[in-house]
Amino acid sequence: MSHNRFGKLLTVTTFGESHGSEIGCVIDGFPPGFPVDREAIMAELHRRATGRSRHTSQRREADEVRIVSGVFEGKTTGTPIALLIENTDARSRDYAKIKDQVRPGHADYTYWKKYGLRDYRGGGRSSARETTMRVAAGALAKAWLAANFDICITGWLAQVGELVFDQEFSGEVNNNALFLPSEDRLAELERYLDALRKSGDSVGARVNVRASGVPAGWGEPVYGKLDAEIAAAMMSINATKGVEIGAGFASVAQKGTQHRDVIENGAFQSNHAGGILGGISSGQDITASVAFKPTSSLRLPAPSVDQFGNAVEVVTTGRHDPCVGIRAVPIVEAMLALTLMDHALRHRGQCGEQPLHPLHID
Amino acid sequence: MSHNRFGKLLTVTTFGESHGSEIGCVIDGFPPGFPVDREAIMAELHRRATGRSRHTSQRREADEVRIVSGVFEGKTTGTPIALLIENTDARSRDYAKIKDQVRPGHADYTYWKKYGLRDYRGGGRSSARETTMRVAAGALAKAWLAANFDICITGWLAQVGELVFDQEFSGEVNNNALFLPSEDRLAELERYLDALRKSGDSVGARVNVRASGVPAGWGEPVYGKLDAEIAAAMMSINATKGVEIGAGFASVAQKGTQHRDVIENGAFQSNHAGGILGGISSGQDITASVAFKPTSSLRLPAPSVDQFGNAVEVVTTGRHDPCVGIRAVPIVEAMLALTLMDHALRHRGQCGEQPLHPLHID
Amino acid sequence: MSHNRFGKLLTVTTFGESHGSEIGCVIDGFPPGFPVDREAIMAELHRRATGRSRHTSQRREADEVRIVSGVFEGKTTGTPIALLIENTDARSRDYAKIKDQVRPGHADYTYWKKYGLRDYRGGGRSSARETTMRVAAGALAKAWLAANFDICITGWLAQVGELVFDQEFSGEVNNNALFLPSEDRLAELERYLDALRKSGDSVGARVNVRASGVPAGWGEPVYGKLDAEIAAAMMSINATKGVEIGAGFASVAQKGTQHRDVIENGAFQSNHAGGILGGISSGQDITASVAFKPTSSLRLPAPSVDQFGNAVEVVTTGRHDPCVGIRAVPIVEAMLALTLMDHALRHRGQCGEQPLHPLHID
Amino acid sequence: MSHNRFGKLLTVTTFGESHGSEIGCVIDGFPPGFPVDREAIMAELHRRATGRSRHTSQRREADEVRIVSGVFEGKTTGTPIALLIENTDARSRDYAKIKDQVRPGHADYTYWKKYGLRDYRGGGRSSARETTMRVAAGALAKAWLAANFDICITGWLAQVGELVFDQEFSGEVNNNALFLPSEDRLAELERYLDALRKSGDSVGARVNVRASGVPAGWGEPVYGKLDAEIAAAMMSINATKGVEIGAGFASVAQKGTQHRDVIENGAFQSNHAGGILGGISSGQDITASVAFKPTSSLRLPAPSVDQFGNAVEVVTTGRHDPCVGIRAVPIVEAMLALTLMDHALRHRGQCGEQPLHPLHID
Repeated sequence: MSHNRFGKLLTVTTFGESHGSEIGCVIDGFPPGFPVDREAIMAELHRRATGRSRHTSQRREADEVRIVSGVFEGKTTGTPIALLIENTDARSRDYAKIKDQVRPGHADYTYWKKYGLRDYRGGGRSSARETTMRVAAGALAKAWLAANFDICITGWLAQVGELVFDQEFSGEVNNNALFLPSEDRLAELERYLDALRKSGDSVGARVNVRASGVPAGWGEPVYGKLDAEIAAAMMSINATKGVEIGAGFASVAQKGTQHRDVIENGAFQSNHAGGILGGISSGQDITASVAFKPTSSLRLPAPSVDQFGNAVEVVTTGRHDPCVGIRAVPIVEAMLALTLMDHALRHRGQCGEQPLHPLHID
Repeated sequence: MSHNRFGKLLTVTTFGESHGSEIGCVIDGFPPGFPVDREAIMAELHRRATGRSRHTSQRREADEVRIVSGVFEGKTTGTPIALLIENTDARSRDYAKIKDQVRPGHADYTYWKKYGLRDYRGGGRSSARETTMRVAAGALAKAWLAANFDICITGWLAQVGELVFDQEFSGEVNNNALFLPSEDRLAELERYLDALRKSGDSVGARVNVRASGVPAGWGEPVYGKLDAEIAAAMMSINATKGVEIGAGFASVAQKGTQHRDVIENGAFQSNHAGGILGGISSGQDITASVAFKPTSSLRLPAPSVDQFGNAVEVVTTGRHDPCVGIRAVPIVEAMLALTLMDHALRHRGQCGEQPLHPLHID
Repeated sequence: MSHNRFGKLLTVTTFGESHGSEIGCVIDGFPPGFPVDREAIMAELHRRATGRSRHTSQRREADEVRIVSGVFEGKTTGTPIALLIENTDARSRDYAKIKDQVRPGHADYTYWKKYGLRDYRGGGRSSARETTMRVAAGALAKAWLAANFDICITGWLAQVGELVFDQEFSGEVNNNALFLPSEDRLAELERYLDALRKSGDSVGARVNVRASGVPAGWGEPVYGKLDAEIAAAMMSINATKGVEIGAGFASVAQKGTQHRDVIENGAFQSNHAGGILGGISSGQDITASVAFKPTSSLRLPAPSVDQFGNAVEVVTTGRHDPCVGIRAVPIVEAMLALTLMDHALRHRGQCGEQPLHPLHID
Repeated sequence: MSHNRFGKLLTVTTFGESHGSEIGCVIDGFPPGFPVDREAIMAELHRRATGRSRHTSQRREADEVRIVSGVFEGKTTGTPIALLIENTDARSRDYAKIKDQVRPGHADYTYWKKYGLRDYRGGGRSSARETTMRVAAGALAKAWLAANFDICITGWLAQVGELVFDQEFSGEVNNNALFLPSEDRLAELERYLDALRKSGDSVGARVNVRASGVPAGWGEPVYGKLDAEIAAAMMSINATKGVEIGAGFASVAQKGTQHRDVIENGAFQSNHAGGILGGISSGQDITASVAFKPTSSLRLPAPSVDQFGNAVEVVTTGRHDPCVGIRAVPIVEAMLALTLMDHALRHRGQCGEQPLHPLHID
């Protein structure tokens, strides 16, 4: 990870600003000969899309992805895969009045302090628009992991504000536009979000994710640990404030006899480890949980300063999600997919394709 | 981060097993001409040392660090600084009987599945002994950050099992061997740990850390974010299961109006962001919190398998901390120091040493 | 350097095939606030352009560069600069008949063996069309080096086949389309190339390059040496077969007393070192020389095989330069510029902006 | 490559100064389960050793390598392999009088300008003593390449000063201490070197190297090219001034019809490419040639300056080879082995272990 690049053997470099002509990415190191299904990429982009529900940002983007390179006659060639999406619904005029202002909770001040200047239109580079490219690249990684290892990655909305949903995986997630693990709570959540939008405020969210089918042995000791790189992947998503693997912060109050996952009848009896021991996958489901802060762009005014240090009252009138955590679900999945695929390649680079030890624990 | 290397411009590569002759590291990219105080390294190692309190592992290591290279006439030369510590108190016989066993909660199975073989003595490479090198390298980073930016990094024990201590920074941390933010609770914690040790069980912990004095502008957008790299740094420490920045998981239930840190009288009025916005430091204190799982090495038996798949009962008789989170405090500080120093160098590489924007918010 | 990425702090990732819709690059880590002159990029692209002279490939590309991101109100923002150029004059039909053939001297066989498949149209990823992006990115690096350090980088044609031109720098290089250091030889070279084209054959070339104004102190010891990275940069250009720094292979027959550059009157008395000692710049001109093999695409038939192992006679009828080395001049300059700028940033990252030692040798 | 680290998936980080207590390296990413033969490492070190012949430096080092980590019960564990060699014959007093001087042809001035200070004893970090670690790490890579692919890497002395030896591989190389391809010339070379030593002067050398058995398909397009990384590897060796692949600079005067390696009867009919096309191995022998400058440390005085800018006469009285190129032969082999092994792992990481295309050309 560095600057705008993610991964080591499989790398994704993204570029583009919220209100530039296009947003794009370059995926390098992808294995050759893999069939690319543009519709599968579009389907993932649609899951992430703004405007999909009245509860997410009303910016309406077609998100038509264009495959510029690296695919020939429908298959990856092993050379860089460049993807481009046009920005068609950017309304820069919405941003003219905040161009000199420091929006609380935003990267305005920090970009100024780092770079001396910033593209203020729609948040420029710090906009969540960048995450379209994570989702597009992640769609390829998901497909590769599924085809080669039968790996399935699913995220869901585990909490929104004070509404706590199922913490465990359920099959219902993709039946509803809000990634709820149980449709029973859908109406309740919609009422909650409607009230929130009306109030002009926003709220945080917790997203859980699970990868099933990951073979034992992926990851690297000490600094290239699988959990360390998952943590970085998740924390690199806009608005993330926390990451847990397995039992996460609940481990703090656990006893050792309770936390350690004992093995009986050839199988782990629990999964507090979240499928990772010593930084290396154990073959159990990989489970993580990610905290998203509430959207900072609010029409409710906040005291702040402008770039000259004058006190100002900031009001944001662009189109913004009252809960960014909802749309984050496919982004969390994508980042997990990219991390796992990078480690799949790194593992076979160092250790080869054949299993090196016969022991198997379910 | 990759394999056994941490950092990008300032890199630390560690090597060595728990029961090998030595454990060591190579620090590359350190700025030249900086005075190296071996005693300061020893002091940090002493803070981390096993055997410092009856509540931590009874392995007694002198931890005498030897500076092999990169320092000439007391100053860094800009070339690789290699540090070595001899392992003097390794008792490999303690491990003979578990050499074929999968210890629940340990990396035994995952190392076998990745590599086909493992050095079972004391956990080999997956031992917490490796963290001496993080602390040694971190001592140099701390000194450099203090000398150049007046940055001060302090960690403390915020929770052990169900005992919750102060979550905010306090000056009392280094007055006691258990890194408690308030000495009032020391006797209580000692009683708790005594009972725990007697029971043969272990418990998790939460460690909080704060860096004050970090200038605004460190970090990189999108994937090289400062918080993403702090998350990776923390999650790379043995036994970590969760990382929070600023408000962390509490953000999930926060409203936007509550979370966003407004600016009045030229100063931020709160710090839910934990000093990082858009992946770049804001000049506020950087705050993080890390969850450690309970020690997995227990003398209380657990069902498991051996490497042939036979059911076994695992009992660990080595010398182990009942709460690894205590000794983790200086390690957490070290990882934060290394991450910050790497970003300090990366920032001046791209953006130079002069401030690029005059606005200042306290 | 890795896959399709060049550099460490300043990275350039290129993508695109010869006959894809576009060819592009992402420049990451560029310092913020630097004015971008699109015309300067176009001017460098024009120097490299096919079709500029009757002696280079007759493919006619407008090479209109589009700045997609990373520039705001005419200045770099510090975020990724993406550049795109449309491929407008690709004639894929020229390649249909060689799609199953192994063209001698080309990457056809090796791409098949690595990837199992290849985009045969115009050489796909292995086409020299990729070098437009080196030149475009290099134009930014040149401008930055000139503005910040008054560094001037000039390449010239030092030899074509048996025609040997001036080996030393001369100011006349940019007065002629063939980068000859002396215009006197222009007519002779044109006659030579005309005869060559008529014969259907091609020839190799030597390109020399010089960077003046590079401060002493850039480079890194042992593996990140400035000369090592210049060598890699040059050898990564299509058709390169050799690289020399300073005296290069002439050093083999030199005596030590002759090679070492002695210092009198506060100045180096010669520059056999080529401006680099111990991998670090000395402040003298950096000089390098690069060997280019003759174009492999020839209309003169060659025996070879097809992908099924059948013997075939290969004839290439696309539009190809009889001497690829001519157009390589601006590419060589660009690669030197990118290498130097990356090292400029790396140096100030580790060592800061202030000189650390007062001694100065001219 | 960066600072003091070489490689991407298989990385070697070296540390230590000429006159420090030890010199060492950390090899990370080595495949697990590979038997390590310390004697094979010692044998390679012996080939490189100073004092092996009266024609090389009279510094006498035992070069006893100590394997500190990463090997368990005789096999690699997949974790970092640290190697250490004590410096036993360093005579720092030899260097006291040149501690303030700029030795022409040395890195003294450039280290000062970069770092502000330098360890002057024996050249500190810029000493050729560092190359012991390249040879030690290279011995492991050679063994792995031989065991897994039957790859054989041999270097030889192709030229010393004006004495030109065989440019093609011959089996006699290892029968003599000076790596001559033909023993016939041994006496002549010894007389030449004796005269040289007597005169106090030194001379350059050309080393050729060949790797046979490399499968087709290793390498990466555009920037991670196999030849680009070989060039960097070679140019990172002390005293290197030039690198050629295959026909090298001779390509400049070649015609395309002459250079391109045609295929008849299922086999390449020549190898001007040096076994690499488009940055990827073709299955032919990989051939390279490296130019070494004459030793700069001479007892013949040279005019120079001291660190205060005063004119001085520099005389070097340490023990130095009159031709560093001789001992460079095993170093060149080692660097080629490390580059190839890194690419072997990178290739199977991206493309897997199975051949992806059936065509085979001998």
